[in-house]
Amino acid sequence: MARVHNFNAGPAAIPEPVLEKAKSELMEMAGTGMSIMEMSHRSKPFEDIIARAEAGIRRLLGVPADYAVLFLQGGASLQFAMLPMNLRRPGRSADYIDTGSWASKAIGEAKILGDVNVAWSGKKDSYSRVPNFDELSLKPDAEFVHLCSNETINGIQWPAFPKTETPLFADMSSDILSRTIDVRQFGLIYAGAQKNIGPSGMAVIIMQKELAERAPAEVPVILRYSTHIKDNSLYNTPNTWGVYMTLLTCEWLESLGGVAAIQKINEQKAAALYQTIDSSDFWRSPVRKEHRSGMNVVWRLPSEALEDAFVSKANKEGLVGLKGHRSVGGIRASIYNVITLQSVNALVAFMKEFEKKNG
Amino acid sequence: MARVHNFNAGPAAIPEPVLEKAKSELMEMAGTGMSIMEMSHRSKPFEDIIARAEAGIRRLLGVPADYAVLFLQGGASLQFAMLPMNLRRPGRSADYIDTGSWASKAIGEAKILGDVNVAWSGKKDSYSRVPNFDELSLKPDAEFVHLCSNETINGIQWPAFPKTETPLFADMSSDILSRTIDVRQFGLIYAGAQKNIGPSGMAVIIMQKELAERAPAEVPVILRYSTHIKDNSLYNTPNTWGVYMTLLTCEWLESLGGVAAIQKINEQKAAALYQTIDSSDFWRSPVRKEHRSGMNVVWRLPSEALEDAFVSKANKEGLVGLKGHRSVGGIRASIYNVITLQSVNALVAFMKEFEKKNG
Repeated sequence: MARVHNFNAGPAAIPEPVLEKAKSELMEMAGTGMSIMEMSHRSKPFEDIIARAEAGIRRLLGVPADYAVLFLQGGASLQFAMLPMNLRRPGRSADYIDTGSWASKAIGEAKILGDVNVAWSGKKDSYSRVPNFDELSLKPDAEFVHLCSNETINGIQWPAFPKTETPLFADMSSDILSRTIDVRQFGLIYAGAQKNIGPSGMAVIIMQKELAERAPAEVPVILRYSTHIKDNSLYNTPNTWGVYMTLLTCEWLESLGGVAAIQKINEQKAAALYQTIDSSDFWRSPVRKEHRSGMNVVWRLPSEALEDAFVSKANKEGLVGLKGHRSVGGIRASIYNVITLQSVNALVAFMKEFEKKNG
Repeated sequence: MARVHNFNAGPAAIPEPVLEKAKSELMEMAGTGMSIMEMSHRSKPFEDIIARAEAGIRRLLGVPADYAVLFLQGGASLQFAMLPMNLRRPGRSADYIDTGSWASKAIGEAKILGDVNVAWSGKKDSYSRVPNFDELSLKPDAEFVHLCSNETINGIQWPAFPKTETPLFADMSSDILSRTIDVRQFGLIYAGAQKNIGPSGMAVIIMQKELAERAPAEVPVILRYSTHIKDNSLYNTPNTWGVYMTLLTCEWLESLGGVAAIQKINEQKAAALYQTIDSSDFWRSPVRKEHRSGMNVVWRLPSEALEDAFVSKANKEGLVGLKGHRSVGGIRASIYNVITLQSVNALVAFMKEFEKKNG
């Protein structure tokens, strides 16, 4: 069977050159006599791999020297807990912006552990947009402001980020490395790996080192950012395979010209899909135009029966992962960095054909 | 370069048939058109993989139905914190047995979060043995008793486990699946994957389901055992590659005849090494005979210079990972399930040759 056009929301497609390289080294990494998976995390070859993965992330995003880059297990979901445990000191509050399912999960964990001010919620609008900056009820004495840069389920994305007085923290799981950002605008950025970075089982954290000093004494050692900053993500055994795959993905992205170059391709991909959706009443976007996600394109058809037929027919033609999230229904095409313009064009061609037959 | 004899302490060797199968499916898993790493964790093919991995662990260890089998990120180190967070209720204490570096790490995390009774410590004996059962100062009102079944650094292992009045919890990171156990004797067993199970980035937890109900309300959702029991390890995206490699390792182990069969081979491997060590004054074991580890064989040479020469010469002959842990020095051969009798015989032959030249 040939490889399909993979529009999965995550875990998502991985670049073919990355998979090929991983395959070629799977039994034995050059000169070591063993697989990367069989190597001590304290060996020179692995220390080289993790240092190069960190350097890759730093170059690709322009991470300043006073920021740490960490590779931790637990995905973004563990960050939802670690973040307030470490960075909201006892008795203090934090601002959270509720843009959808992922922002809500972060809020849920933060509420278990202390005080949260929901500075805005899009729930009343069925999470069809992000806020305008002047809609935010931010508190000057908050410990931080938290947002989710791209909501995979409702397909909305912040086109730009607010300048905040307190440190801005962002869950960028689904759009990290897809567009240029100014890291200095953020105190902390985190991202589960399984969309734009590599396989699942890891998160990348980019944070101002000095923030880590806030952690109260009762935070377990393994759950402190300071532990992992001090030991360069090697306090305990990291997901060595995940770090290795991250390195390969960074190398692939740099070979294409880096984030600015992939951003142009991503914009072409999103434009091709949104133009098709806007070209006819057969398709309908539930999202405010200026907040449409460049990573997760969601849309509806005239009926659920037609949506089911669309997904099922697409599957047969090798266009997979197009079913919208079960909580909202409809269609979703996730078009992360790895998804080629060719794959998007194949989807557009399929949409036009489907509309002709069913419109 | 050929594959070496890999005596790494962890991450450690992976069975060659497992690596070969993973390599053959890396670009595309039969009938799916994608790599296992590119698959949704909520897809049918992955749900099948995780169900089969769980069934494999259940069969191999004889796990009763009222026990959960979980695949969580964070390795054993996160378990050091999750365990007391969830299972030692506020105001109560737990018994911990200090047999060495790993037991001490578990104690360290438990002390941050509440009261600990160290029921025995081997520190005064330089961690050269485990306790006799009658040496343990267990408390009848403790929430649980915690031990580490095998200490990788000092090379000691419990030959049998105490019958305790309160639930017995064991860190079996370095000897799970290497010998038969009675799961019913334990309330909870956990193990980082990177020794006998698969690559790093995962832990397997086997626990009596009802224990999970103890968790206090302020434990974050992601850090609750009950969350993961309810969602069969799919509350958040698991390390899908790690789960897949676990399945392949279980299949490999079952093809060899299961745990009882590998235990016999493990005993032969350990006997071959310890007999060599005991055969001459050139080698010296620092460990009490009846508590010697069957997984991590440690020994000394007459001088540190000879130890360095031994490790360096062995490396050149393709016997790697033999340097003792930096905290104790000496030599360490980790001979987990995956290490063949052939590899151990090659090491024994090298030892005899080395002794002849340097003894």
